[in-house]
Amino acid sequence: MKPTAILLLHCPDRQGIISEITKFITDNHGNIVYLDQYVDRVDGVFFMRIEWELDGFLIPRDKIKDIIDTLYGVRFGVESNLYFNDEKPRMALFVSKMSHCLYDLLARYKAGELDVEIPCIVSNHEDLRYVAEQFGIPYYVWSIKKDHSNKAEVEAAEMELLRKENVTFIVLARYMQIISEDMIRSYPNKIINIHHSFLPAFIGAKPYHQAYERGVKIIGATSHYVTTELDAGPIIEQDVVRITHKDTPDSLVLKGRDLEKIVLSRAVSKHVERKILTFKNKTIIFS
Amino acid sequence: MKPTAILLLHCPDRQGIISEITKFITDNHGNIVYLDQYVDRVDGVFFMRIEWELDGFLIPRDKIKDIIDTLYGVRFGVESNLYFNDEKPRMALFVSKMSHCLYDLLARYKAGELDVEIPCIVSNHEDLRYVAEQFGIPYYVWSIKKDHSNKAEVEAAEMELLRKENVTFIVLARYMQIISEDMIRSYPNKIINIHHSFLPAFIGAKPYHQAYERGVKIIGATSHYVTTELDAGPIIEQDVVRITHKDTPDSLVLKGRDLEKIVLSRAVSKHVERKILTFKNKTIIFS
Amino acid sequence: MKPTAILLLHCPDRQGIISEITKFITDNHGNIVYLDQYVDRVDGVFFMRIEWELDGFLIPRDKIKDIIDTLYGVRFGVESNLYFNDEKPRMALFVSKMSHCLYDLLARYKAGELDVEIPCIVSNHEDLRYVAEQFGIPYYVWSIKKDHSNKAEVEAAEMELLRKENVTFIVLARYMQIISEDMIRSYPNKIINIHHSFLPAFIGAKPYHQAYERGVKIIGATSHYVTTELDAGPIIEQDVVRITHKDTPDSLVLKGRDLEKIVLSRAVSKHVERKILTFKNKTIIFS
Amino acid sequence: MKPTAILLLHCPDRQGIISEITKFITDNHGNIVYLDQYVDRVDGVFFMRIEWELDGFLIPRDKIKDIIDTLYGVRFGVESNLYFNDEKPRMALFVSKMSHCLYDLLARYKAGELDVEIPCIVSNHEDLRYVAEQFGIPYYVWSIKKDHSNKAEVEAAEMELLRKENVTFIVLARYMQIISEDMIRSYPNKIINIHHSFLPAFIGAKPYHQAYERGVKIIGATSHYVTTELDAGPIIEQDVVRITHKDTPDSLVLKGRDLEKIVLSRAVSKHVERKILTFKNKTIIFS
Repeated sequence: MKPTAILLLHCPDRQGIISEITKFITDNHGNIVYLDQYVDRVDGVFFMRIEWELDGFLIPRDKIKDIIDTLYGVRFGVESNLYFNDEKPRMALFVSKMSHCLYDLLARYKAGELDVEIPCIVSNHEDLRYVAEQFGIPYYVWSIKKDHSNKAEVEAAEMELLRKENVTFIVLARYMQIISEDMIRSYPNKIINIHHSFLPAFIGAKPYHQAYERGVKIIGATSHYVTTELDAGPIIEQDVVRITHKDTPDSLVLKGRDLEKIVLSRAVSKHVERKILTFKNKTIIFS
Repeated sequence: MKPTAILLLHCPDRQGIISEITKFITDNHGNIVYLDQYVDRVDGVFFMRIEWELDGFLIPRDKIKDIIDTLYGVRFGVESNLYFNDEKPRMALFVSKMSHCLYDLLARYKAGELDVEIPCIVSNHEDLRYVAEQFGIPYYVWSIKKDHSNKAEVEAAEMELLRKENVTFIVLARYMQIISEDMIRSYPNKIINIHHSFLPAFIGAKPYHQAYERGVKIIGATSHYVTTELDAGPIIEQDVVRITHKDTPDSLVLKGRDLEKIVLSRAVSKHVERKILTFKNKTIIFS
Repeated sequence: MKPTAILLLHCPDRQGIISEITKFITDNHGNIVYLDQYVDRVDGVFFMRIEWELDGFLIPRDKIKDIIDTLYGVRFGVESNLYFNDEKPRMALFVSKMSHCLYDLLARYKAGELDVEIPCIVSNHEDLRYVAEQFGIPYYVWSIKKDHSNKAEVEAAEMELLRKENVTFIVLARYMQIISEDMIRSYPNKIINIHHSFLPAFIGAKPYHQAYERGVKIIGATSHYVTTELDAGPIIEQDVVRITHKDTPDSLVLKGRDLEKIVLSRAVSKHVERKILTFKNKTIIFS
Repeated sequence: MKPTAILLLHCPDRQGIISEITKFITDNHGNIVYLDQYVDRVDGVFFMRIEWELDGFLIPRDKIKDIIDTLYGVRFGVESNLYFNDEKPRMALFVSKMSHCLYDLLARYKAGELDVEIPCIVSNHEDLRYVAEQFGIPYYVWSIKKDHSNKAEVEAAEMELLRKENVTFIVLARYMQIISEDMIRSYPNKIINIHHSFLPAFIGAKPYHQAYERGVKIIGATSHYVTTELDAGPIIEQDVVRITHKDTPDSLVLKGRDLEKIVLSRAVSKHVERKILTFKNKTIIFS
């Protein structure tokens, strides 16, 4: 795999943006290997993901972002993020007691499906240490007291770890604690959660029991970026499975697990491939 | 098709109910052609749908219900409904301005898929009279004023029509008015609505716009029996379709239409085939 | 809705094509309202759909195609099709005895969902004349003899009608006859069929019975362009529904009908919106 | 969990079978905790799964099967299988080089989702030994030569192992070898395979590449019992996922992996719960 630059941008829609930017890359000897764009005509916003090979590209890596912002920031109102495919995202996993999402992500990682590094797994319980050990990944436990009296302290320790390990994004793989606003603000659109319902139905605790009580015929799972409002962040991926009156809360939990792990892993993959743009509490997912 | 009796019942679960009832039918020379049962182990309730041929059955039609209630009502706590397959349900359609659900139901009716009679179509607008005329079905319009000042009067007229036409159940085929408690109580679990969202998400008005605003990745439709609480009655059927960030409120409306008509017609079919039992605001749907 | 031009093209992939073409349109004062492109990296082919407003566009309608072919045909190897949004496609419907797809398409047409004209419905049976009459569309019957001895004659008459009515594409809405090679060659990628299986499974006759015999757990329907090889043309759309061991061939037929009409109508919509490109017996479906 | 007996049976359909058998169990003080039955009206066959508690049941475990066969074998033509919920199935896993199905099954096993014992993992390659070691399960490798000259020998060794370990069923978790007729006959309806296509489409090798070539819009996976005809055994479970023209053979492989593991694990669960009956190369799956 050759080294590439990946540019994600959005700006007010106007004629000629695509030509400008593709011309800029081509003129500087960049070989474009991916281009996908989308115009939100309701809001009048242009979104693009463009990727080009760096071999022979005339602008050095560390100047690309600055030049693009300078050339197109004021003129077009472009806001952009730049990534390089050879700089792997560093993912921290937060878990609690359930292993299905953790196993699923680690099995993909081990099989080479997820192009990330996993410097640490964080939990408030010892329960899943054996999984971390199976895969040789450091496992850190900070117990949060029931009265949450040590929560600030715990999060400070976690933040310290994340910084030390240069973590670029966090995956809450059925982590049952609420993340504080501080931590959320430190990782904007960089904390991925899996909620075990078809949001916005059944926000909050015990969604499968809520679904059972309501008598729905389909249940779902939702992966979203964490914002300061509970279960209300930009949705990345959802999926559903059909159920019947024969299902009990327990069988819903079991069926839901398969949804959760598949939906979470799809969301993580899209994030790792830098194919997600967020805008106005929604996601644009490039193909 | 030979004449059959269809018995739907539920009672507290205990040993021997199936044997008792199948033995009763067999002993009286009834040939059982369908039996499906289900035990809700959470609530300890037994549900059954059983259908047998009436030719040669020793008990006359008009006495079956009484005998079953007498034999099993007190002893087992059985609550039952009895239908005959040669007595077609009489369905009233309530519509407003959108034609897709109406066309879909009438096309099925015309093709012999729906074993009902349709004595009338009721609306608060003239818009869909041409559809009723295409199919030769009487179309009644009562306009409800914006301030709802004549609503009681309109519903009285509608109820009069329903009684006159011996309507056994009502389908709200994208009828945009709220039904009064009186009418709902007159047709308990006999008014089927289609709500254009995946309930309980997006209750109330403009669900597709709500879905667009929330940025969901899947939309749905829900068919349910109407109860006095808005969009909260027993769910009969749901289905969903995947959407993307490229969808606009308009394209959601279009995609939703296909869901609505399919989901509604499945619910109507199940009702017409007497395959639905309701219990504790949920439905048991027999196969 | 303002008049627009819609250009569908493909060519060998190389740098700068998007810039070239968007620049050409912009330079000639065309306001681009849609652009979607896709690069097939396996075959090295670039595909694009681009739409722009004609008001103020400097090149007259009747010269656009010629100029694009001249400018980009040899230089880039571009092959293109040009449409105008105010020139409605003219759709001929071919039917046999089953009404569900016909009703579904006509109901959409009547509701304004399908931006087409329907000059004629063609059949080899009288059965569905009443549907055509309900919608006021001319209905033509040519009976094909069991030994097919008059097939050439019938198709000649049909072709004559299609020419006279300036039909631009044909929809086989559960038309049970095989179309001759001559007719297929006259309407390349312009005859849309619905096959009642998940192709390539169960090619040919009675697919629901084949599915029942094989004991599959999911059935499907497939809409495709007709080519001279049976059920082997480019697939436009597919969908599936879950079944169980309780389904009989008859219940499969019923469940399949809903699939068929939804899948066919999605395919027809995409065709009418000029969002389909065919290449190497596959379809590229623009969003 | 109390000990129960699970009886799976089928016989020609006739009146009174359910009453007979439920009465037999009740009369002998068995408390029925599950009953599901199904009548195939096309073939006239009755199928039932019935489960009752053994505490207080008057007939000793080791006589139940014999008594049922004696009482109902000749009289009703009943063919039955009897299991006890406290006798765990012993599952052998056969794998090759891909880890996703193996990890998925082992993670479920570890989380207590699969009520089995796993005495051994068998492979023709060393590749997945590390996974077996992570979970502490013996891993056996017998390499099959390219010319298959040692295949009989290898299978003999495998059969010896299976016998020694009292293996009751085999799961081919993406095992890429064809099983010999001898082994298949030794484990009738006891070898579960996952085929990476929506059977009967794309039988044989490289189904994702076949799907790519054909241009389908949906891909699938199929779990089935292995019979002596390739990919033609009774289907247990299938599922599908939507794809687009943008998918490459590689992305199909990735999307397919998620299908494969979910579909295989659902099939294994149903088998382990003794909820599958096979009849005429089809499966009846109890709820």
